[in-house]
Amino acid sequence: MSDNSKPLRLAVAGLGTVGTGVVKIIQEHADILQQRSGRSIEIINILARDPSKDRGIDTSAYKWTDNVDDLLDGDIECLVELIGGHEGIAKDCVEAAISKGIHVVTANKALLAHHGYELACNAEESGAQIKYEAAVAGGIPIIKTLKEGLAANAIESVFGILNGTCNYILTEMQQTGRDFEDVLKEAQEKGYAEADPTFDVDGIDTAHKIALLTSIAFGVKPDLEYMQTRGIRHVTVEDINHAKELGYRIKLFGICRMVSGQLVKTVEPCLVPLSSTVSAVDGVLNAVAIEGNFVGPSLSVGFGAGEGATASSVMADIVELARGVELSAFGIPASELKDADWGNTGEIKARFYLRLVVLDRPGVLADISTIMRDHKVSMESVLQRGDDANSNQPVSVVITSHMTKQSNIIQAIEKITQTQNLTEDPCLMRIESM
Amino acid sequence: MSDNSKPLRLAVAGLGTVGTGVVKIIQEHADILQQRSGRSIEIINILARDPSKDRGIDTSAYKWTDNVDDLLDGDIECLVELIGGHEGIAKDCVEAAISKGIHVVTANKALLAHHGYELACNAEESGAQIKYEAAVAGGIPIIKTLKEGLAANAIESVFGILNGTCNYILTEMQQTGRDFEDVLKEAQEKGYAEADPTFDVDGIDTAHKIALLTSIAFGVKPDLEYMQTRGIRHVTVEDINHAKELGYRIKLFGICRMVSGQLVKTVEPCLVPLSSTVSAVDGVLNAVAIEGNFVGPSLSVGFGAGEGATASSVMADIVELARGVELSAFGIPASELKDADWGNTGEIKARFYLRLVVLDRPGVLADISTIMRDHKVSMESVLQRGDDANSNQPVSVVITSHMTKQSNIIQAIEKITQTQNLTEDPCLMRIESM
Repeated sequence: MSDNSKPLRLAVAGLGTVGTGVVKIIQEHADILQQRSGRSIEIINILARDPSKDRGIDTSAYKWTDNVDDLLDGDIECLVELIGGHEGIAKDCVEAAISKGIHVVTANKALLAHHGYELACNAEESGAQIKYEAAVAGGIPIIKTLKEGLAANAIESVFGILNGTCNYILTEMQQTGRDFEDVLKEAQEKGYAEADPTFDVDGIDTAHKIALLTSIAFGVKPDLEYMQTRGIRHVTVEDINHAKELGYRIKLFGICRMVSGQLVKTVEPCLVPLSSTVSAVDGVLNAVAIEGNFVGPSLSVGFGAGEGATASSVMADIVELARGVELSAFGIPASELKDADWGNTGEIKARFYLRLVVLDRPGVLADISTIMRDHKVSMESVLQRGDDANSNQPVSVVITSHMTKQSNIIQAIEKITQTQNLTEDPCLMRIESM
Repeated sequence: MSDNSKPLRLAVAGLGTVGTGVVKIIQEHADILQQRSGRSIEIINILARDPSKDRGIDTSAYKWTDNVDDLLDGDIECLVELIGGHEGIAKDCVEAAISKGIHVVTANKALLAHHGYELACNAEESGAQIKYEAAVAGGIPIIKTLKEGLAANAIESVFGILNGTCNYILTEMQQTGRDFEDVLKEAQEKGYAEADPTFDVDGIDTAHKIALLTSIAFGVKPDLEYMQTRGIRHVTVEDINHAKELGYRIKLFGICRMVSGQLVKTVEPCLVPLSSTVSAVDGVLNAVAIEGNFVGPSLSVGFGAGEGATASSVMADIVELARGVELSAFGIPASELKDADWGNTGEIKARFYLRLVVLDRPGVLADISTIMRDHKVSMESVLQRGDDANSNQPVSVVITSHMTKQSNIIQAIEKITQTQNLTEDPCLMRIESM
């Protein structure tokens, strides 16, 4: 239990967008925070680049330092780590804090996805708490929802639109008809995407986040192995338009679900029905859908990034520490986290969207249909696009399937590829009905 | 702090749908609950009607009683009150528990909306906790989200689709074109609506729930005064269809928001854009939208009622007690809850939907337009319905306004009523853009 008569003394590592937001909340909401947590919250030390930079906040009352020892010196009760990255100074200061029994509040999904298990074990030994509400889905308190609000449920699946950059790009492509590269460039100019967008658009950031949600939801060690990760680079405006015509939108999801008693974890673009709540989650919004065996389906939506939203979640963790709430990092004691029994994506049963580009000549559709039938894939709809039938020109064939095992449709596609009717790589996406 | 080595001993009052769900979770998930809370959870005593009734659960291990003293006897640490109602036995057993320092977990919004302040004061004196996640929005952990996840924000507004019965009726009316009475009858047959539907369809249940959310969001005593409460009895299929044509859906909202420094609390049907996430919240789903000054807008969606969803929230509270988490009932100490400074709905600035039924004769539209202009209401669109212009028959005129003060448009309507052009009561609803 924390001592309510003393202020909660913080060391803040990193004063970028989120760190600046945290300082603003602490300064502007001192009264609310005191009332709601029962203690005053004080920033003591700061470690960040360029103390002289104008961040629109007054940091003159804090002690600036450039080394980890000084950062944690001065009766610090909690380190707020907002530097990012799974190695280097972020890891150094988190490890140092934990070894001293200093609590850690962080927004660093990469660090926790890579090293969360060891950090949680060490923290439990030293008596430190690790909190990371801001690491997943920005302002949405989804860690709390999963760890506490849905604690009585066996979780069946977790789906997330977890990367605002990707969701912004897909939304723009859908609304304006512009292609990926064009929208990415604009997103970079607006500051919604990094100069090197790999982390976001190739799904790595989403993979880190779904790894953390998976750990809490299913009681397993956070883990980046056995994750099929596809980003949004290969999503075309053509697919977006076909999807729309069929009554769907394309979203990038991080997903983990129980399939025949094993966990299957993927990051990939999927189609969702236009009538679903999640299909309206546009732009830089994030969303997390959780299915529990008692609660049924639930969905949370909010800003996934940005100064205010992410700082709001960092502060929720700090308030909780000030209130004296103690909870294991991943919902159960680290020693009880299991190695997951990972299943194969081939076992997933779903409906599918498939676009094939074929030479438009007689018999092609018959070939495809026969192969699909032979692999037990029942087709729901087939659209053939092209002005002129049998022109011997490349045309798109868009197929939606009834429920089938993913391995069946993949084997069918391999067989179709062998017929040499295809002029481009096939595009396969699952249809997720949520 | 709770003693982790001993089981958490429960007394359960009420074994209806939700109570039965709670027993099921405790029996089926004993291992999960133990792992996540660090303690085993045991039901000791039960107070409920008809012990011999087949509820599909084995209750033979519990001690049945019909009086409050026996219910709380036997080293009980927590009373789970699932009887309902703001007077009578529900109140008696909650008061008795609190006076003995026994924690209370309840789904009883009526009790807390009427007596929450006194109960919270008494609980703080005796050392009891009051938890009521299940009282608002069923399975959605919105009490936790508001009290903890968004604790660093000054809340600007809380909007909720909080009554599954009303949302089911409105959704059915919209999808099938059947009228209110017809759909209500079917809902009663299916068990979605009570034989006496007043509590639900007249907005009283929603009023109880928004009173609790208001208390937490704005730090005020829970209070049913100064609430403008309108249910859904007067919503017609015609309005639903006009709204749809204009790009909106009609939903019943409980709303509390800050307007010029005062709180304005209403329960009423409003229009929301079809493009909004909340417009897709259909059937028995509930949703709560919260706007915080740092986090921005957020939305949570899930089942608002039913055995599993509501029991999931009851159990979340029980797990939290088992974990030893202590928190004030309304987020801050009861002694610091203020009497709210209630503002007038007339001060709300919004866009509006107005349907007038007028005799279709020359000059009517000109009269209406002039009065609107004189009251500073700028009209965005006007649709006049009727096959035959100037037929002297009643026709609907559907108007949407630009942003205006609610008092202005109400005064304009009063003036229009005085012109005696109207053949029915006007229908006015706000357009809420979320």
